[in-house]
Amino acid sequence: MTGEMTALPDIQPGLLKFIKNTNARAPPPSESLVFGRTFTDHMLTIPWSLIDGWKEPTIQPYGPLSLEPSATCLHYAQTVFEGMKAYRDDTGKVTLFRPDKNMERMNTSAARLALPTFHGPALLELIKELVRTDKHWIPSEPGHSLYIRPTLIGTQRAIGINPPTEALLFVICSPVGPYYPNGFKPIALYGTTEFNRAAPGGTGAFKIGANYAVGVLPQKVAANKGYQQNLWLYGPEHDLTEVGTMNMFVVFRKPSGGYELVTPPLDGMILPGITRDSVLTLAREHAAGKSPLAELTKDLEVSERRVTMKEVKQAAQDGNLVELFGAGTAAVISPVDRIGYLGEDVLIPTEADGMGPVSRPIWKELVGRQMGAIDHEWSQFVTK
Amino acid sequence: MTGEMTALPDIQPGLLKFIKNTNARAPPPSESLVFGRTFTDHMLTIPWSLIDGWKEPTIQPYGPLSLEPSATCLHYAQTVFEGMKAYRDDTGKVTLFRPDKNMERMNTSAARLALPTFHGPALLELIKELVRTDKHWIPSEPGHSLYIRPTLIGTQRAIGINPPTEALLFVICSPVGPYYPNGFKPIALYGTTEFNRAAPGGTGAFKIGANYAVGVLPQKVAANKGYQQNLWLYGPEHDLTEVGTMNMFVVFRKPSGGYELVTPPLDGMILPGITRDSVLTLAREHAAGKSPLAELTKDLEVSERRVTMKEVKQAAQDGNLVELFGAGTAAVISPVDRIGYLGEDVLIPTEADGMGPVSRPIWKELVGRQMGAIDHEWSQFVTK
Repeated sequence: MTGEMTALPDIQPGLLKFIKNTNARAPPPSESLVFGRTFTDHMLTIPWSLIDGWKEPTIQPYGPLSLEPSATCLHYAQTVFEGMKAYRDDTGKVTLFRPDKNMERMNTSAARLALPTFHGPALLELIKELVRTDKHWIPSEPGHSLYIRPTLIGTQRAIGINPPTEALLFVICSPVGPYYPNGFKPIALYGTTEFNRAAPGGTGAFKIGANYAVGVLPQKVAANKGYQQNLWLYGPEHDLTEVGTMNMFVVFRKPSGGYELVTPPLDGMILPGITRDSVLTLAREHAAGKSPLAELTKDLEVSERRVTMKEVKQAAQDGNLVELFGAGTAAVISPVDRIGYLGEDVLIPTEADGMGPVSRPIWKELVGRQMGAIDHEWSQFVTK
Repeated sequence: MTGEMTALPDIQPGLLKFIKNTNARAPPPSESLVFGRTFTDHMLTIPWSLIDGWKEPTIQPYGPLSLEPSATCLHYAQTVFEGMKAYRDDTGKVTLFRPDKNMERMNTSAARLALPTFHGPALLELIKELVRTDKHWIPSEPGHSLYIRPTLIGTQRAIGINPPTEALLFVICSPVGPYYPNGFKPIALYGTTEFNRAAPGGTGAFKIGANYAVGVLPQKVAANKGYQQNLWLYGPEHDLTEVGTMNMFVVFRKPSGGYELVTPPLDGMILPGITRDSVLTLAREHAAGKSPLAELTKDLEVSERRVTMKEVKQAAQDGNLVELFGAGTAAVISPVDRIGYLGEDVLIPTEADGMGPVSRPIWKELVGRQMGAIDHEWSQFVTK
């Protein structure tokens, strides 16, 4: 997708300018990593203006941005972002997982906020160059990766509420450890009815900053009640929508004895997650017999449909609730063992390893494709 | 309202540090001013950290902020702001209009985003000092003022989605001309049903950045259809909620011949506007005979209640729609003469000066109190 200003320059990888970090640091020990706190030696910046279009991209030392106090991103939340991961296997091969999907979604998000759009493959080429530059920062231990954060902000130096005349796209990288370093630990969710994450006609389907700041207080409320994350419930029937900042799936046992894997449909309130899409694709390929998941022997039906707390409670009571899990880039799969709902706890089965009979084979296949153990087109080669 | 960390220092005006701008500029001619583009010589900054609380406030030369690329405000829209005005009359007296209300609301907004709260009077004292520092920037022509923009952003240098461990409060000032330099010009609204501004359980009642970026695209859609602003309609009955970034009022003719002034109630979806509150207060003081508005001779009923497009259309057809207007800090009162609704235009009466029989006397009283022509406690003395 390109911007409306098609006559103006798009992102041009050929113009890349490189400023080496002469104060390069040694990456910290992998076991000390905390999500999103450590950043690599370099970052990528690409300024944009309404008059000039996308300007010279630069890989430069990681360091502070100079922003006018009137910059619109600071006042009106003109910011969209992405989260993606680079993996390094034990042979040193570096890959990205479905990065084209991130480029597509970032453009969709940018358009929703009237920020400039861009040619996705051009940005991806530059991100690969940034990853190559700092590839020694990618931890190669199992479950480790380099978290990549492309961000696009409005930087217009005037506090009118308009499509900005200036913007800045920047990409920073952070080495991260596994979300569950000691094996899966199921989380407890608080079924949130006091706050909504999204509503029809709103922006729940976009990866924009505005959806995230507003979730911090609800998360504190959940934590104060003894739960790790919010289960965002929508509407009078308390439809399950998302888990914290993840998409969510639930598995029911059908009268036939087979399983139904359910996730809410992309109705405008749900983020079109790339892990969500990957889980659905793997489950559908299995169900169609195209690419069977070895350990999944029962019939599997895959549904994108509404699912309410009434249905989940009833299934739990009847012994037909098989599992419930979150899915996102950071944790990949996040099993749930409990939902606090209107004053009582709905218990969700989990198996000895913390997972369930559907999430486990899907997770194995997904992580195999992500880490490069399973050769697949989802995994894009970056460097060796 | 103070923060949860009451043991830590609150904002301390006594610690104010002053760094003079040695490159002070001459304020531009008042007739050249465009809203929010020109800023005065100085700004106020107050950093905060979870460990130290509120730190030393500084009035310093207006200039760029240095922010880490990982600062949470850039990714997750951790930003709240206020809009307030300082007026200078022809004797040189400088006043602020109900600034205590802005301080209260900024704290409410900050709490909603889990940003640090503060002692409102302490920040107000520092804002007054900033206004005194740059008082020669306040245009004194009728309808002119100094627009003051306090902003509070999360600056934590880590991209976790949490209450930030670091934040920055800054205040910048911009001289502005009248919203309607050549007299009131009624605007046409597009009745927006494709997008929602707010929903129950959401954040419509808070002045947070997240509510504003998302309105830019709907505004473009309205403009492309030939309307100046959005009329945000909510729910299946198309309740009128807000106008662009303003609160809204509608006046009906009652069977008795008197008027009913209606604005939507503060149900969690409506910003508790200070102009909204001022309009309601003036109307109620008039209705109660406490402070009668000279030109308003008919009976006036004041209602905070739901109002739907069906009711507005019916009243327009029956000749009982008297007027409809937006109310906010920037424009004060913004009359409306047309609503594009589901493919047809609903026409709203306006009088020769663009206003109506209820908005005109309210506007005169309000502007009189704002500009200092009418002595009132709402107007706080800053300097002479």
